[in-house]
Amino acid sequence: MCTCLFYYQTTMSDKNFRTIQSLGRTELIDELMEQNSFTHSSVAEGYGDDAAVIENKEGYKLLSSETFMEGVNFDLTYVPLHHLGYKIATAAVSDIYAMNGTPEVVLVNMAVPNKLSVDMLQEIYRGIGAAGEDYEFQIVGGDLTASHQTLSIDITCYGSVAEDEIIYRRGANKDDAICVTGDLGGAIAGLRILMREKEFWEEQEEQTAFQPDLDDYEYVVKRQLVPVARQDFINQIRELKISPTSMIDVTQGLVSELKHIANASELGAYVYQAAFPIALDTRTVADEMKEDVDKYALYGGEDYELMFTLPEESVEKLADEFQDFVVIGKITEQEEGVCMQQVEGDVVNFDSDQNQEG
Amino acid sequence: MCTCLFYYQTTMSDKNFRTIQSLGRTELIDELMEQNSFTHSSVAEGYGDDAAVIENKEGYKLLSSETFMEGVNFDLTYVPLHHLGYKIATAAVSDIYAMNGTPEVVLVNMAVPNKLSVDMLQEIYRGIGAAGEDYEFQIVGGDLTASHQTLSIDITCYGSVAEDEIIYRRGANKDDAICVTGDLGGAIAGLRILMREKEFWEEQEEQTAFQPDLDDYEYVVKRQLVPVARQDFINQIRELKISPTSMIDVTQGLVSELKHIANASELGAYVYQAAFPIALDTRTVADEMKEDVDKYALYGGEDYELMFTLPEESVEKLADEFQDFVVIGKITEQEEGVCMQQVEGDVVNFDSDQNQEG
Repeated sequence: MCTCLFYYQTTMSDKNFRTIQSLGRTELIDELMEQNSFTHSSVAEGYGDDAAVIENKEGYKLLSSETFMEGVNFDLTYVPLHHLGYKIATAAVSDIYAMNGTPEVVLVNMAVPNKLSVDMLQEIYRGIGAAGEDYEFQIVGGDLTASHQTLSIDITCYGSVAEDEIIYRRGANKDDAICVTGDLGGAIAGLRILMREKEFWEEQEEQTAFQPDLDDYEYVVKRQLVPVARQDFINQIRELKISPTSMIDVTQGLVSELKHIANASELGAYVYQAAFPIALDTRTVADEMKEDVDKYALYGGEDYELMFTLPEESVEKLADEFQDFVVIGKITEQEEGVCMQQVEGDVVNFDSDQNQEG
Repeated sequence: MCTCLFYYQTTMSDKNFRTIQSLGRTELIDELMEQNSFTHSSVAEGYGDDAAVIENKEGYKLLSSETFMEGVNFDLTYVPLHHLGYKIATAAVSDIYAMNGTPEVVLVNMAVPNKLSVDMLQEIYRGIGAAGEDYEFQIVGGDLTASHQTLSIDITCYGSVAEDEIIYRRGANKDDAICVTGDLGGAIAGLRILMREKEFWEEQEEQTAFQPDLDDYEYVVKRQLVPVARQDFINQIRELKISPTSMIDVTQGLVSELKHIANASELGAYVYQAAFPIALDTRTVADEMKEDVDKYALYGGEDYELMFTLPEESVEKLADEFQDFVVIGKITEQEEGVCMQQVEGDVVNFDSDQNQEG
């Protein structure tokens, strides 16, 4: 018999209760994945990269999933629903691009509370549909259930890539240049502004519709609300036949992604703080908030830019045709760890840094 | 500029607020899918069947997703976490079997509140892993995020099927026998018992660990907590080279699945109440609860049995080798709708019946 015990609350007071926060994200996933008890012959790469890789006669198939929970990953007070759908779809396809793949279809799962109307749900789907137009994927199904309190949305993306074109996190070589597209820290700067406006709005006596003046913050707010996956970069490197040795999308912040590439490649990384691509608008927000803008880049996340490594000789070739990237450092020996040379010259080692988790 | 308006609460009081409950599930999904704005050439079948079907040189690929929200789809008071993982995985692979496919890999997404420990999460994964062993799939990734209140779990299953072996809902022919594996209504009967025990437990002065005596209800409680997807049936029909003309898994109850097959096939269905396969244990529970056991079968759902249609001549051939199914009716003309002949002889038409939604 399946022993069914009314035990939940009692287990919670257990002295050996290991909180989820007691482990880093990667460590936690590793522990959970130990429960995997079957190995399928079609799996070329299981968990641990941006997407799972499934073998197929005509190349590889890619699968990746994103889960967004209200109150944690988004706030319905200020996130337009259309943008919410677009953003989650962006997050899902970004993982496919990070393997140098092409998205084909998505599945959408939602748990929906009563506070949302049919038309509000449609707005979310309209956003996903708009992303489908931009990234060329079709919505082919999913699941819908009720929720008592919070809205949760999951998007799974399925795509493909030629076997000899796939780019893993683990392919970096010593002395490769570490590059990043676009700029970093903008998404968290936008979030700071939106949270400040929300606080202001909540302090009003009546919470009527309120249009904050965000003109001065347009760039960063857009980075937060409607980030764009770097399809353009993927198209460019294919056209130029330039193949990064490793690649990852920037969802957790620079430190986390540097560690992922370094650990997967069994090498180290050395980056220059002065080289971080940070928009002026992002700096302005950090100054206003009296915060360190480099922390936005290092730990902010949600920029959906691509970090990749390239042999020195390919950097110039790429730069001739594509300007929206910078070199921020280079790949080193594993013993050297993941380090950043600060503007003043001091070197920080991130290896014991737990900040990036979460 | 992305117009960012602090508007959420005001939209909620809109007079034109159409609640999600105002539409049936199918109608709602249809409305949402209208937002789909891109058609990918690889899609053989989008939403609307048990799984999406993607074309591929070596056959079809299948994708299906299940979302389970705490408080709606499960109750942590009495659901052992191992069983929870197993059950959601069962729900996901069941959709792949319902297309006559073979599961290969799954992605697991979770939004996890602080009340769960690392070891509790591991229990869930252990359940998914056990299902992986039984159904032969590998967990290849997913996503993990925090949640303020409720646990939500999504499992997406990816599988495959030969192009000439795929079974859609839409393939039924007039006069085909309508068949169901196993028995129906057991899962809802088990839920009734668990809810009654929970009520009893909540009435206690102290909510300490409590092991209810469920020995008399073992069968139905097991049907609720650890349902099994009918992989055995799929293996059997492949071996016998019997090909149902249509198939669907029973997740919402008989009425809903009958309508799905009838509507997709543009035909009608006529079933006999007296033929419904209902276990004695299920009847006992319904009697105890003073409820109509046929309603359990018609609207209960979560049985994860397979409903399929077969030409009369194939029924006997199947019955010679596989006994765990019954014929409950036959496919009729579309004008006749979806009908049930009651034990006493009266005929009920379900076409205007909204009960099955949700």
